[in-house]
Parts: sequence; C-alpha cells; structure tokens
Amino acid sequence: MKEQYFLQRVRAKTPLVHCITNIVVANFQANGLLALGASPVMADAVEEAAEIAAAANCTVLNIGTLNKETIEAMIIAGKSANEHNVPVVLDPVGAGATQFRKATVLRILEEVKISLIRCNAGELATIAGVKWHARGVDAGEGEMDLQKMAMETAKRFNCIVAVTGVTDIVSDGIEVKEISGGHRLMSKITGSGCLLSAIVGAYLSVCSGENFAATYEALSFYKKAGERAAEKSEQPGHFAAYILDELHREW
Amino acid sequence: MKEQYFLQRVRAKTPLVHCITNIVVANFQANGLLALGASPVMADAVEEAAEIAAAANCTVLNIGTLNKETIEAMIIAGKSANEHNVPVVLDPVGAGATQFRKATVLRILEEVKISLIRCNAGELATIAGVKWHARGVDAGEGEMDLQKMAMETAKRFNCIVAVTGVTDIVSDGIEVKEISGGHRLMSKITGSGCLLSAIVGAYLSVCSGENFAATYEALSFYKKAGERAAEKSEQPGHFAAYILDELHREW
Amino acid sequence: MKEQYFLQRVRAKTPLVHCITNIVVANFQANGLLALGASPVMADAVEEAAEIAAAANCTVLNIGTLNKETIEAMIIAGKSANEHNVPVVLDPVGAGATQFRKATVLRILEEVKISLIRCNAGELATIAGVKWHARGVDAGEGEMDLQKMAMETAKRFNCIVAVTGVTDIVSDGIEVKEISGGHRLMSKITGSGCLLSAIVGAYLSVCSGENFAATYEALSFYKKAGERAAEKSEQPGHFAAYILDELHREW
Repeated sequence: MKEQYFLQRVRAKTPLVHCITNIVVANFQANGLLALGASPVMADAVEEAAEIAAAANCTVLNIGTLNKETIEAMIIAGKSANEHNVPVVLDPVGAGATQFRKATVLRILEEVKISLIRCNAGELATIAGVKWHARGVDAGEGEMDLQKMAMETAKRFNCIVAVTGVTDIVSDGIEVKEISGGHRLMSKITGSGCLLSAIVGAYLSVCSGENFAATYEALSFYKKAGERAAEKSEQPGHFAAYILDELHREW
Repeated sequence: MKEQYFLQRVRAKTPLVHCITNIVVANFQANGLLALGASPVMADAVEEAAEIAAAANCTVLNIGTLNKETIEAMIIAGKSANEHNVPVVLDPVGAGATQFRKATVLRILEEVKISLIRCNAGELATIAGVKWHARGVDAGEGEMDLQKMAMETAKRFNCIVAVTGVTDIVSDGIEVKEISGGHRLMSKITGSGCLLSAIVGAYLSVCSGENFAATYEALSFYKKAGERAAEKSEQPGHFAAYILDELHREW
Repeated sequence: MKEQYFLQRVRAKTPLVHCITNIVVANFQANGLLALGASPVMADAVEEAAEIAAAANCTVLNIGTLNKETIEAMIIAGKSANEHNVPVVLDPVGAGATQFRKATVLRILEEVKISLIRCNAGELATIAGVKWHARGVDAGEGEMDLQKMAMETAKRFNCIVAVTGVTDIVSDGIEVKEISGGHRLMSKITGSGCLLSAIVGAYLSVCSGENFAATYEALSFYKKAGERAAEKSEQPGHFAAYILDELHREW
C-alpha cells in the first residue's frame, strides 16, 4: 500500500468527525482535525447527539470530563452511529481513575458497537480487568503482556485496539503490530492521545473496512509528525503548534 | 472615517464582552478579545447570566456546544442586555446541523432583540428558511443570492447581518457591502468565526449606534489580520498564534 | 534555601493536581502543569470528585465558569481533599462580578478548609467585604491597603493568601512579602492567573508544610518565567507558547 494512503483519502473526502469530548482538549482536537484535512463537529447535547452522529462519517466518544448528561449523549450518539454504519471510536480517558469512569466505559462497550478502542496501557488494564497502578489520566505502571491483552480485548469486543505509549500496539484480535518512534514531548502536551483518537476516527471513516491497516497507518503517521515537530522545537508550547503544522502539510 | 477608527475606540474603552460560548473556542475567543484590547468574561450559568449581561458592554450568544442550561442562560442574558441597551450578537453555529440548533436560533431571535447576526452562508440559509446542504458546523454548499438573503434577513430582524466566507457580506437591511481578501487558513483554525463575532461585538459596544460602519470595519480589519498572519506562517499551528499577535499590535 | 528548591521537588515527584476548572483555561492549565513537571487531572463530575481528590496530591477549585453541578463537585472534592490531608487551592475568579460567585466563594470558604487563596485585588476585596469597583473577571480598581487585607484574610481563614498583579503580595497571616517583576503581557493572555493557582498547588503538594515559602517561590518563579517569555516575544499569541516553554525548561 502506498505511503500515507489513507491520509490522502481523508484529505480527498474531508470526513465529518463528530466528537463528544472533554473541555480540556476540545480546541486542540478540533484544530488537529482541521489541520489534517477532516471536518470536526463537537456536539454533546442529548437533544442532538443522534442527528449529528447520523450525519457524521465517524463518532468519537471521549470520557475525559464526563458527566451524567454527556454520558447519555455518548450512548445516544454511539447507537445512532451504529444504525448508520459509521465507525465509533472510544477513548476511555482515565478509565481506571474512578469507579464512575470504569462503569461508564463498560456501559458504552456493552451498549454501543465500538470500532476502535484507543487507549493507554492503564486504561487497557482497566477494561481487561487487570490490576494496574493508574494515576489520574496518565498511563501509570504495572506488569502485563500488553500485546496479549490488546489482542484479547480486540477479540472480546470485536474491534481494533490501539494502545499508545513509547511503543504503540495495535491489534484486531488476530494480528498484532508494534510501532516505535515518536517523541517523549507528545506526553508533555495535553490531548495528544485524544487528538490521535479523533485522527484514527477520520482514517476509519474513509478506509472501506480496512480498519487494521488504517489504524496502523494513522499511528505511524502520528509518531512521525511528533518526531518532525520535535526537530523544530523541544519545548512544549512551540511543539504543540508544530504538531498542528505537521498534520497540515504535504506528506 | 479614519482607518481603524472603531478599533482605537475599543482600545481606549476596553469594553467588557460577555460571551456565552462553546467549549471548543472559549480559550481562543478570550485570548483574541484580550489581544484586541477588550475584556472578555465567559459566564453561562443561569444564576448569573442577567447580572453579567447587565454589567457588560456587549453580550455574545454562541450556540456551538449548546445545551438546555446554556440556552436558558442565553435567553436570560440576551433579555438583560436588551433591558440595559447593550448590543447582543448572535453566532448561530451550525444552525442547520440539527433541529435542536435551528429551533434554538429561532427562539433566540424571537425572544431577544439581536443587534448582529454573524454567520456563514449555510447558517444564514437556515435562518432564512432556504434549502442548503449544510455539513456539521461548516458552511456547506447551496445556491442562493447571498446579498439578497443577507439584506432580507437584516430587514426582517431589524439588525445587521454579517455573512463571512471567502467574500464577506454585510447588510443593515438597506445597504449591502462586500469585503474581499483574507486568507484560506482562517477556515483551518477552529473558532476564527466565533472570535470574529466577539470582536464585532466589541466594536458595536463603542460605535455609538453606527452598527453598519463598525461591523464593516471589524470584518475588513479581521481579513487584513488574516492576510498578515499568513505572511508569517502558512501552517495552522503558528498561523493561529500570529492571528493573536496581529490583533494585538499597533494598526 | 536553594533557588527553585520546590520546583525541583515538583519535578522529582510529579504531583497529581486535580483541577475543577473553567472551560476557558482548562487546556492552558493542563499544558502548563505538564510543562512544569506535574500531572494534571481535570474532573468535575459529582460522581467522581471525591475519588479523584482522594487520589490527587492537591485539589484546585476555580469558579471561572461555575454552575450548579460543578459547585457541588467543588464542595465534595474540597472535603475529600481535607479528609486526605492534601492542600486545596481556591481561585475565586471574578468573585465580585455577581452575587452567585460571591455566595459560592463564601460557601466554599465555609465548608472546605482552604490552604491557599490565589486571587487578584478585586477578588480579595470581595472576600474581605471591602468596596471595590470590580469589572467582569478583571482586577478592577479601588483603594485599600492590600498588604493589610491579605494578612487579615489569611489570618481569618488560616491559610496563605496570594494576591497577584503588577506587584504580588503573599501572606500567611503573620508575615507579608511582596514580589515585583513579571511582565504586563501576563494580563493579555487568558488563564495566566488560573494556571498560576494550579502551579502553586503543585508546589504546596511537595512542600512538607512550608506553604508560605513554597507560595513565595512559585510566584517569583512565575514572574521570572513571564519576563523570559517576553524577551522572546512581546505579542500575546507567541508569548503564551513561550510561557509554556519557560515552565518546561531547566531552571
């Protein structure tokens, strides 16, 4: 497959990416999607979640600053996306941080057919029911065979699982691949994972069912964008601006 | 009239601009108003909407991520601004994207006296009841005589209508003017339209009733700021920072 | 005490800073904490406020865009932090702007043991019950002996009071110190005060009870970061990025 194959399709089709997201990253996520060539729409009211999801090419559910209302909107949007056969991405931000988050993630996974779980190691551990020392919304520390866990979780929910970190892992329940590279500064800007979830969502919406290949390309692309941005600045304020620049330019 | 006449008045008076706005652009909008020389205050609780609006020099209603609570706050703030004779700007973000947004916009237009509607072509079409292919919160595509529609809508609601895009159109229901220029990158950063709505609000608050002239100057100024920012960077991450820089410097 | 003593401890311990904050500054605040070397977690749902606060090393209550739900979350989080003996910072944004804000601030001060109030002069006046011409969320103008007022308020609530402005004032109810320096551009970027509140929170969480010294160091550090950022750019868009860069680099 040609390099940046799915990226070119995203740019050609400008998919509408519906994000129910958190107050911390909404701006960066919208700017990142625009820079990439997608069209973001943030909408989390229960009154319109179904209609927006029906019109969108993908829905991204992010529980970063969840509350009663937005959880209902996520369920409604997810079900609507399911009915309209558009991919749904779940970003279980800080899933292990509280019982409330864990219960919400498990509820979404039960009520909505998810195409992709994009998470860090700690969040995967929570979903998989493995002991883990999570810490707020950060990955935390623990011991487990991440590849195995990613594959089993992908099989269990019949979806793609993408676990990002120093080395990314992606599995569809059958295959598993690793992606190295990237830059440590990615973890020094808030929302870098959240933005990635939305970017993979854009890729999934144009990939004609090649979810595994599209996710792999998106993760590889994002790591390269991080490397290139870090060549321009190794300080986080400017690095964040360079990330957006990299997402936007010719590849 | 001297160049940047109203801008100098904004900077001399530092108007307090009350924004009920969305989670995506709140930061950029506040930073843009500060850069310009105005003083932003974001407050969307029903308990304080009237009091803030009464103290402010202008209220800006933006439905970008509306919900039940904030809609009530918008109505309360709008009515309070009306009572205190300060301008109210309506930014009907994605008005055509859902029935919920459309109904909200029409309700606001019915219950609050609006000084300015700042919108894109698709949002204008929704307000005017014209068929249009809207897409999320983007302008979308359709055929209509925008000048005529802007003028009729301005007449109908007895306000200024500013339709922004590649070419901006501004009408007070009698006159209509076009503004060309600007830069395509403006549509690659989220909230550029939302920020403009707040900036025009600041202009209206110091224009002594010359709403049409003030809106025209604000739109022209914003297009020039976009052009100048694009001379510094044609990548969106840095372009956004340069926009804020341009809003801040001497003109 | 060595220069940047507490900063080095923050970086060694990466404290988890729980912020219940506003939609305007959440992104800048999270990025600032990450740049500094702390770990932010924004969580304002009543269902999880206690659990997050219990796990965090500090809780920061910011009323910038308060509403009924988040106020309850603040009270719950504050009480939980009190039970777990971790510091609680109160940022009474725009306390004097509305009766709703004033009542909320006084309620928090009554129900939660606060370690630090970080505010501007107008907000201090509101808490102290002194007449003041506040204006939105800006400091405003008035006449009072700020040092005396800071000291009395610190004594009254048995906490540190840090009043920031052109000259910062910090008191523990016994001592009072001033900090000059900084740069006027700090007031031209939204959330610079809110971020400072969270940064002092990070310092307090690693200071082993030396709250006064830690607050003084944090305020001095922040003023220097502002000065250095302004040497790089005197325009607000780029200045904001340089602030984050400064918070991140070696000191």
